[in-house]
Amino acid sequence: MSKGGFTLPGEAGYEKLTLELCEKWGADCIRDSDGTTLSDEILASGVPIYSTICMVRSINSFAKEHKNMLQRNFLSTDPKMADGETLLIKPLEKYFREQFTICPDDDVNEFWQVWDRTDGTLVPSDCWSYDPESETVTVTGCKPYHFYTVSFLACRIWEEISMYNHITNDWGEREHLMAVEPRYPEVQDALLSYLDEWCRSHPATKVVRFTSMFYNFTWIWGADERERSIYTDWGSYDFSVNPVSLCEFEREYGYRMTAEDFINNNRHNATHNPPTEKYRDWMEFTGKFVREFGRKCVDLVHSYGKLAYVFYDDTWIGVEPWGEHFREFGFDGLIKCVFNAFEARLCAGADVKTHELRLHPYLFPTGLSGEPTFAPGGHPEADARRFWACVRRALLRVKIDRIGLGGYLSLTEPFPAFRDEIAKIADEFRTLRDLHDAGGPWSTGIRVAVLQSWGSLRTWNCAGHMHEHPELPLNHIYEAMAGQPFEVRAISAHDVAEHGVPADVDVIINAGREGDAWSGGEVWDDPRLLSAITEFAARGGGVIGVGEPAARRGGYRHFRIADIIGVDREVGETICFEKYKYEKKPHFITADGAPTHFHNNAAGAYSLGAATDVLADDDTGVTLACKQFGAGRGVYMSGFTYNARNARVLYRAILWAACKESLADAYMTSGENFECAYYPNTKTLVVINNSTKSGTVTVKTPDGDVTADIAGEGIAIL
Amino acid sequence: MSKGGFTLPGEAGYEKLTLELCEKWGADCIRDSDGTTLSDEILASGVPIYSTICMVRSINSFAKEHKNMLQRNFLSTDPKMADGETLLIKPLEKYFREQFTICPDDDVNEFWQVWDRTDGTLVPSDCWSYDPESETVTVTGCKPYHFYTVSFLACRIWEEISMYNHITNDWGEREHLMAVEPRYPEVQDALLSYLDEWCRSHPATKVVRFTSMFYNFTWIWGADERERSIYTDWGSYDFSVNPVSLCEFEREYGYRMTAEDFINNNRHNATHNPPTEKYRDWMEFTGKFVREFGRKCVDLVHSYGKLAYVFYDDTWIGVEPWGEHFREFGFDGLIKCVFNAFEARLCAGADVKTHELRLHPYLFPTGLSGEPTFAPGGHPEADARRFWACVRRALLRVKIDRIGLGGYLSLTEPFPAFRDEIAKIADEFRTLRDLHDAGGPWSTGIRVAVLQSWGSLRTWNCAGHMHEHPELPLNHIYEAMAGQPFEVRAISAHDVAEHGVPADVDVIINAGREGDAWSGGEVWDDPRLLSAITEFAARGGGVIGVGEPAARRGGYRHFRIADIIGVDREVGETICFEKYKYEKKPHFITADGAPTHFHNNAAGAYSLGAATDVLADDDTGVTLACKQFGAGRGVYMSGFTYNARNARVLYRAILWAACKESLADAYMTSGENFECAYYPNTKTLVVINNSTKSGTVTVKTPDGDVTADIAGEGIAIL
Repeated sequence: MSKGGFTLPGEAGYEKLTLELCEKWGADCIRDSDGTTLSDEILASGVPIYSTICMVRSINSFAKEHKNMLQRNFLSTDPKMADGETLLIKPLEKYFREQFTICPDDDVNEFWQVWDRTDGTLVPSDCWSYDPESETVTVTGCKPYHFYTVSFLACRIWEEISMYNHITNDWGEREHLMAVEPRYPEVQDALLSYLDEWCRSHPATKVVRFTSMFYNFTWIWGADERERSIYTDWGSYDFSVNPVSLCEFEREYGYRMTAEDFINNNRHNATHNPPTEKYRDWMEFTGKFVREFGRKCVDLVHSYGKLAYVFYDDTWIGVEPWGEHFREFGFDGLIKCVFNAFEARLCAGADVKTHELRLHPYLFPTGLSGEPTFAPGGHPEADARRFWACVRRALLRVKIDRIGLGGYLSLTEPFPAFRDEIAKIADEFRTLRDLHDAGGPWSTGIRVAVLQSWGSLRTWNCAGHMHEHPELPLNHIYEAMAGQPFEVRAISAHDVAEHGVPADVDVIINAGREGDAWSGGEVWDDPRLLSAITEFAARGGGVIGVGEPAARRGGYRHFRIADIIGVDREVGETICFEKYKYEKKPHFITADGAPTHFHNNAAGAYSLGAATDVLADDDTGVTLACKQFGAGRGVYMSGFTYNARNARVLYRAILWAACKESLADAYMTSGENFECAYYPNTKTLVVINNSTKSGTVTVKTPDGDVTADIAGEGIAIL
Repeated sequence: MSKGGFTLPGEAGYEKLTLELCEKWGADCIRDSDGTTLSDEILASGVPIYSTICMVRSINSFAKEHKNMLQRNFLSTDPKMADGETLLIKPLEKYFREQFTICPDDDVNEFWQVWDRTDGTLVPSDCWSYDPESETVTVTGCKPYHFYTVSFLACRIWEEISMYNHITNDWGEREHLMAVEPRYPEVQDALLSYLDEWCRSHPATKVVRFTSMFYNFTWIWGADERERSIYTDWGSYDFSVNPVSLCEFEREYGYRMTAEDFINNNRHNATHNPPTEKYRDWMEFTGKFVREFGRKCVDLVHSYGKLAYVFYDDTWIGVEPWGEHFREFGFDGLIKCVFNAFEARLCAGADVKTHELRLHPYLFPTGLSGEPTFAPGGHPEADARRFWACVRRALLRVKIDRIGLGGYLSLTEPFPAFRDEIAKIADEFRTLRDLHDAGGPWSTGIRVAVLQSWGSLRTWNCAGHMHEHPELPLNHIYEAMAGQPFEVRAISAHDVAEHGVPADVDVIINAGREGDAWSGGEVWDDPRLLSAITEFAARGGGVIGVGEPAARRGGYRHFRIADIIGVDREVGETICFEKYKYEKKPHFITADGAPTHFHNNAAGAYSLGAATDVLADDDTGVTLACKQFGAGRGVYMSGFTYNARNARVLYRAILWAACKESLADAYMTSGENFECAYYPNTKTLVVINNSTKSGTVTVKTPDGDVTADIAGEGIAIL
C-alpha cells in the first residue's frame, strides 16, 4: 500500500480511530470540519494539521456590535397591482425574516427604487416613501391597474451556510452566525486581527483552508416554506453589494450601479444568462477587491510559515480558479468538492501548486437529499465507490495531487466495508497520480473550445453542480468530455466576434438554450461572430451545436449557425414551411449506437435539406444530424444527457467534426461502459469500468488488442 | 322526410342516379364540380342548377398569349456562403419549375434584391447582375464567409389547385391551367367578357358559385420531391404581388413595398405571425381591389338574374367573411367546406343571406391522406357520419341554411349504406335548421373574446383547417367552443391597447405561442395592453391564457399576464429561481375530471405562489391552474387539444372565469361525450352523442332531469 496525498477529517474523542484510519488510508494530513474540533492528542500526533476557516462568519461578537457592517444585497418585491392612486408595499413580506432585515443606517432614497413594471419605468423618488416603523413603502400618484415593485437594499443577519446547516441539522439555540462586510475598514481590521490571533493560537496547523473568501454564492430564502429557497445561483455576485461598494464603484467607474442593475427585470444576473456590460464591470470591481484583501489574508498565513489553501465552494465569489487573476491570491492549493468528473477537471486545470478533491459521501448521517448514508439502511461503501467511479474518469486524463474526506469520522465506526473501500480508492488514486507524475497520457490532440458568454472564467462548469441544473446540456457535455482525451477550454463569444476563432481550436461546441449564457443570446446579433464561425467551419473546423445553439430571434435562421450544422428549430415562426423529408442514415458518429433520449431535448429541430444527414430522431424532431460544410463539418444534437452511450456518441462526433475518424480505433474500448488511458512513458494502459457490472473489455492499441476482465466500477492497470 | 336545403353534385351520364338521389336526399339544387359537367337531361330536369366557376384559371388561351400577365410572387433563395469576392446564385434552383419561372418583362433592378443575411444588409444594386440566359445572379464585392440570398419576382405558370389536382390524380397530358393577374386592365376585360359569355350560355344556372375570387392562398412548391410543398399558408397575400400592384400601391400609399416586405427574413407574412404595419397596408390595398373587381363580377351575374355565391377556399385571399367589408361584394351566399365544427361557426356568422356547408367526405375515390373512401376497403357511410358528428355540434348553436356534397356522384353506386346515411344526415340537418327558424337556443349569455393580432378578420379560425396545424391550441379552443353556448368573437390586441377591452366582453382568451399572432408578440411591449387586461380582470373579467399567452421576452414576466393567471413559464432565463411547491386542489373547473394530455403543451409552466390554485400538472410542469384576481379570475392551461373531456374542462373554466358557476347545472349533460341545446320557443331539447358508443344520458334542466338513450353519433329530439 502506498501512502500520502490523503486528507483525513479528525475528530476529538475518537483519537484512536483517527490515527488508525490515518494509517489505513495512508493519510498524510488531518483536518477539522465545520462542527468538529481536533483534540490535543491528535494535534500532538505529529501528523500535519489542516484547519478550516471561514473568516466572514468567524467574528460574530464583532458582528453583533456592528450590525450596520453586515453584508447586504438587493431584493425586489413581487409585482403588486395599484387599484387606486396609492399603493402600500411591504418590502420584506415574501422573504425569510431570519435571513433578511433592513439596516436603519442605509439611505433608502439613495439605494432603493420603485418601479412601474407595467410601463417599465422608474417611479420618481418624490412619489414614494418608506416608513421603517411599519416596514411599508407608500407609493402615491400610481397609475391604476399598473403593477409596481420595490427594489430595496436588504441586510443579511444570518450567514447562509450557517443558516442551512443550522436548520437542516436542527441546531436549536445555537448562535446564528452573521457575515460581516469586508468593504468596511473596521471589518478588515477585525478580520485580520482575528486571523493573526488564530494563526498564533494554532501552531500545529500546517495548512489553513479558507472556505473560501468573503462572499457567498447568491442564496435568497423566502418566508413561505413552499418557496424556502427563492433564488440560488452558485456564480452570481448579488451578495457583494453594499453602500460602501456601491459608492466606491461609482468613484472608480464613473457611473452608478443601481438596484435595477442587480434586480434586472426579475432575472437578476444569473450565471446562466449572458452578463450585461455593467455587471461585468461589477464583477471586475468585486474580483479585484476580493483578490486584494484575500492576498492580505494569504500573506498573513504565510508569515506564520503555514500554507494557504482555498476551498472552492460557498463563499467563492471572486475566487473563480479559471479567472485570469486567480494566481494573484497566492494560494498554495485548491480544494474542490466533487460529485462529477468535470469538477475534477475544473480543479486540476487551475494554476496552483496543489489540487485536492473532497470526495463524496461526506461523513454525515444523510446525503444531500436526505437518504441514509452513515445511518441504518445506508451503504456508504457503495456510495463511495459510485462517486469515485464517477470522478475517476477525469483522473485518467489529468493529475490531481490529493484527495480527502469531510465530516464526522466517528460515523464510520459501524461501517467497516466503507473503511476498506476508502483504502482501495486511496490506492487507486495514488496509482493514477504516480502515472501522471511519470508522464501524461496519450491524447487525440483535438482541441475543443466551448463557445459561451463567459469565456475562460467559467471553464469546465456552468455554475454549481450537475444535479442542480441537469436541464443544461453543457453540464452533461462537460461531464462526457471530462473522461475523454481532448484538450478542452472555454472561449467567449464576444472575443470570437472581436478577434475571430483562435488558431489553435479544432472543434467548437455551442450548447445552450435560446438567450442563455451557454448559447450566447444577444451576442449573435453581431455579424462578426457568425462570419468568424462560418470562416472557421468553411476552412476545416468542426462546429457542434447542442440544444438551441446560437439561437436568437430576428435573423434569417433561429439558430444563426443553422446553415453550418444543417438543422434549425421550429419555434412557431415558420410553421407554414413544410419540413424536408429525410431518411435517416448510418454514419461514423453512430457506428457504436444511436444516442439515448436526451432529457433536455429541444423539440422541433428539423433538417434544412439534402445536404444534412440525419442520424437520429424521435417524435419531437431531429435529435442528431451532421453536415459537410466547405472543408469543415457541422454536427447538431437536440440536447445532451450524459451516459455511457451518449458519451461515446459525443466522442465520435468530435472526432468526425475534427476530420479525425482515423483515431476511432486508437485506445478505443470495445464497450461503451469502459474507458481507458495509455501512458506512453511507463507503457501503462489503465482501463476502467464505469458501470456496476463486471465485464470483459478489449482495447485497440497500436500494438494490438488488449483484453481484460474488470469488476463493476473496477480498474485494470496493464 | 323533409326536403330542401341540400345541394347535390350532378354527373353527366348518371342522370338516373342524379335524379334518384336528388329525391332521396331532398336536394333542391344540382351542382357541377371541378372535372364534372351536367348533361342536358339534368339541366332540363327543372331542379335549379348551381354552377362552379374559378375565373382566374378559366381563360387559358388568353393566358397563353399573354404570359406577361400571369400572377407573380416574391421568392428567396436559400442562404449561400461567399467563399471569395464573387458568388453565383441561381434563383429558381430550389423551386418547382412547372410552377415558377421568371417573366422576361419584369424589371430585375426594380423588383429584385440581394441580401447579405449575415450582416442583415441589402447589397447595392450595382454589386450584382442577373443573366437570364444562365438564370444566374452574380454578386461581386462579397464579404467572404457571409451568407447571401436573392429575393426575386417569380412568375407562376401553373395555377396551384389545377397543379395539385393534376399531379394527385395523374391527369397526364391535360393542359396546365394558369392564373391570370386581374390587376392588368386587359385581363379584367377578358375575365368580364368570359363571365358575360358564360352567364349567357348557362341559362339553366340559377346560382353561380365563385371559387373564390382571384388570388390563391400561398402555396410554394419545391424542386425536391422531399420538400415538394415548401410553404403553405391559407391566409397570406404573397400571390397578390406583381409589377402593377407594387407600383399602384406606391402611388396610393406613398411608399414602396419591397421584396423584403414579403420575404420578411425568411418568415414571409404567415398568418400565424403578427402582421407588420406595411403588410396590413398591403392587405387593405389588395382587399379593396379584390372587392371592387369582385363586385363587378357579382353585378354581372346579378344582371342575368342569377345568384352569386362564394366558396370560401382556394383563391380566397381578400374574401375573408369576417372582414368588415365582406358585405360589399354583394354575394348572396357563402359556402364553406368543413372538417370541423369551428368552420361551421365561421360560415354561420358571416353577414350574408345564405350559409351553406360542403360536407365531407367528398365523392372521390380516396380521402386527403390517400385512404380509400369510395374505393374498395372504404366505409364512406362511417366517414360521413363521423364528419357530420364532428360538425353537427356547431349546428346546435347556430343556423346553417344549406348543406351539400361535392365530387363524382357515380362513385356512390356501390355504397348504398352511404346513400342512406346522407339521407339521415340531411334530415337531421333540416330538423336543426327548422328549430333555429323557430327561435334560437338557450345560451349562457357569456361573451367570450379571443384576443389575437388580427381582430375580427380571423374569427373562428387561425388559417386553414385544424389538421394542418394541430399544434395551435387556438384551433382546438375554437373547436371546443364551436359546440358550446357562448357568444364568441375575436378582438385585436392592438385595438385593446388603443381603446381598452370592449364593455361587452365577459371572458378573454389568449391562446398561442411566444411571438405568434395568436399570443400577440410585440404588441405586449405596449403597456396599455397589459393595463387594459389588468383593469378588465381586476374589475371582474375572466382571463384565460393558453400555451404561452402574452409571451414576450424583456418584461418582468415571460407571460406578461402572469400575475393575473398565476402562472409563468420557465424559458431558461430564470432557472435560478426555485419554483413554488404547490399541492394540487380539487376545483369547480375539474369537477367533471382533469384534462387529458395536451399535445401542444408548453413545457415549463410553474405556479407563482400561494394565490394560484394548481388543478393539474404533469412531468413538464403545471398544465391547469387558476387564480382569483381582484374581482375577476384568471385561468391558465399549458396547451389545449380538443376532445370531449377537455371541451368539458374548457366549458367549466369559462363559466368559472365569468363567475357563472351557477350555470354549471343548466342543460348540462351527465357524460362528457354528450352535448345538448334547448330551444325555448319550441320547448325542444336536442341531445347529441359525439362519440361512437351508444349510451344513456341525463340532462339537467330547470324542469328536472331528462334522460335519453342515444346511439353512437346519434341525436335525440326531446
